[in-house]
Amino acid sequence: MKLATIRLADGHTAAVRVDGDTLVHLGATDVGALLAQPEWRSRAEAVTGTTSYAAADATFATLVPAPSKVVCVGLNYKTHIQEMGRDLPEYPTLFSKFADCLIGPTDDIQRPAETTEFDWEVELAVVIGATVRRATTEQAEAAIAGFTVLNDITCRDWQFRTREWLQGKNWDSSTPVGPYLVTPDELPGGVRPAVAVRCEVDGEVVQSDTTGDLLFDPVHLVEYVSTMVRLNPGDIIATGTPGGVGHARKPPRYLTGGEVIVTEIEGVGRLVNRVVNEVAS
Amino acid sequence: MKLATIRLADGHTAAVRVDGDTLVHLGATDVGALLAQPEWRSRAEAVTGTTSYAAADATFATLVPAPSKVVCVGLNYKTHIQEMGRDLPEYPTLFSKFADCLIGPTDDIQRPAETTEFDWEVELAVVIGATVRRATTEQAEAAIAGFTVLNDITCRDWQFRTREWLQGKNWDSSTPVGPYLVTPDELPGGVRPAVAVRCEVDGEVVQSDTTGDLLFDPVHLVEYVSTMVRLNPGDIIATGTPGGVGHARKPPRYLTGGEVIVTEIEGVGRLVNRVVNEVAS
Repeated sequence: MKLATIRLADGHTAAVRVDGDTLVHLGATDVGALLAQPEWRSRAEAVTGTTSYAAADATFATLVPAPSKVVCVGLNYKTHIQEMGRDLPEYPTLFSKFADCLIGPTDDIQRPAETTEFDWEVELAVVIGATVRRATTEQAEAAIAGFTVLNDITCRDWQFRTREWLQGKNWDSSTPVGPYLVTPDELPGGVRPAVAVRCEVDGEVVQSDTTGDLLFDPVHLVEYVSTMVRLNPGDIIATGTPGGVGHARKPPRYLTGGEVIVTEIEGVGRLVNRVVNEVAS
Repeated sequence: MKLATIRLADGHTAAVRVDGDTLVHLGATDVGALLAQPEWRSRAEAVTGTTSYAAADATFATLVPAPSKVVCVGLNYKTHIQEMGRDLPEYPTLFSKFADCLIGPTDDIQRPAETTEFDWEVELAVVIGATVRRATTEQAEAAIAGFTVLNDITCRDWQFRTREWLQGKNWDSSTPVGPYLVTPDELPGGVRPAVAVRCEVDGEVVQSDTTGDLLFDPVHLVEYVSTMVRLNPGDIIATGTPGGVGHARKPPRYLTGGEVIVTEIEGVGRLVNRVVNEVAS
């Protein structure tokens, strides 16, 4: 099953099931609100005969507009760890994003005037479908509603201003997410999907790897994070980025206004976002 | 003016104005919901003749139950920077907490079985009262609704597992906040208050400093954070802790079940919390 959040003509949003070219209205304002319903899976599967929309006409919104947590994993692909010159870690490195950073899968990415080192990071993102704390492996597997695509756009100059990464990772309206939540049964590997991840800038492939290269897989991450703090329906865990970021190139390459980033995960979805130089208000 | 969120007998909460021993119901579910109303200051000042409660009978809840952001400053008192063996920084070091970490001012602090290095950190916290982005100094001053007390309880072993602090700082139901939001006009120094901060463990004073020792003051922090991302009503900025944490003692001293922590800021408020060994569910 594929779910999405679309923008309606009246300014509201709606959670839909994606049935090929048809989007079926599920009676919730967004996928986050849908996932908060205890029986969301069977309800979403069962809905028929309600309002539907043509996928070609729809504008997709950020999948979950206000998750209680966006947990990000810093170093999780062996290739990216090596290019950043680090040893393989024993534990996942975690930081977080505020919900106000999230945008939709075709929205413009605001490039702030305050940065000169604006960079890309394709990431497979886990979407949580149940409240869990100290999840066992089995509970963690069951708590994964599905997967989506996220680009953890980063201001490298701000990331390395201090010893904490947060300020490089939390710029308003910078992080595209979506377009779909794809349930694990749709993916090879299920809750531990083995799929290709890819990022293109103006048609050039800059990142290309497979989620099989992940050090800490989605189930392990749900177990690990939920040891500390409850995970709630709609929460997002961005599982980290593979090698190929602009900062690690010699010479480095950063994003500029007008470039188009395509962020794609095989069988999960594709984000297409233009970088625009933000006009400070 | 002093505001608070109290727990009602019916299981709900309510925002109140604290008039000495009387708590005046303000018609909002909590201080976060109150601050989301554009004219919250004048409304809260004007309310009379509604339901009121005796302060002595009330149980205070966490001041803002679900802020969109809890931004924390890592190294902001000269004394604490020196005890941790670091140089004075050029920029504030920022990390964040999830709302699910927050508890009320007299609630038990859950000490997880997974840590052996459970530590205290008294902090002056800024509460935001308006939406701001790239705030000027004047806008930042106006966006500060007031101040409260927060104890940034930390699992040091988890804080230093990886290079990001998040996992030491984000344990469920660990971080007391409250009891009051005190508006700047009530404090010496106003939006840059110069007040005593103090933490006691079982009656022993372990931290004692003044917010005059802050490197980056509350107004500067609102300007800095809002450069990156909008701040919304109810958002919290914890301004960092002074010297005297248990981890920096020789030998280190950590919290154990049964101890009582008193976290106090002159003219702002006082948290009294028992540490309990969490029974994993």
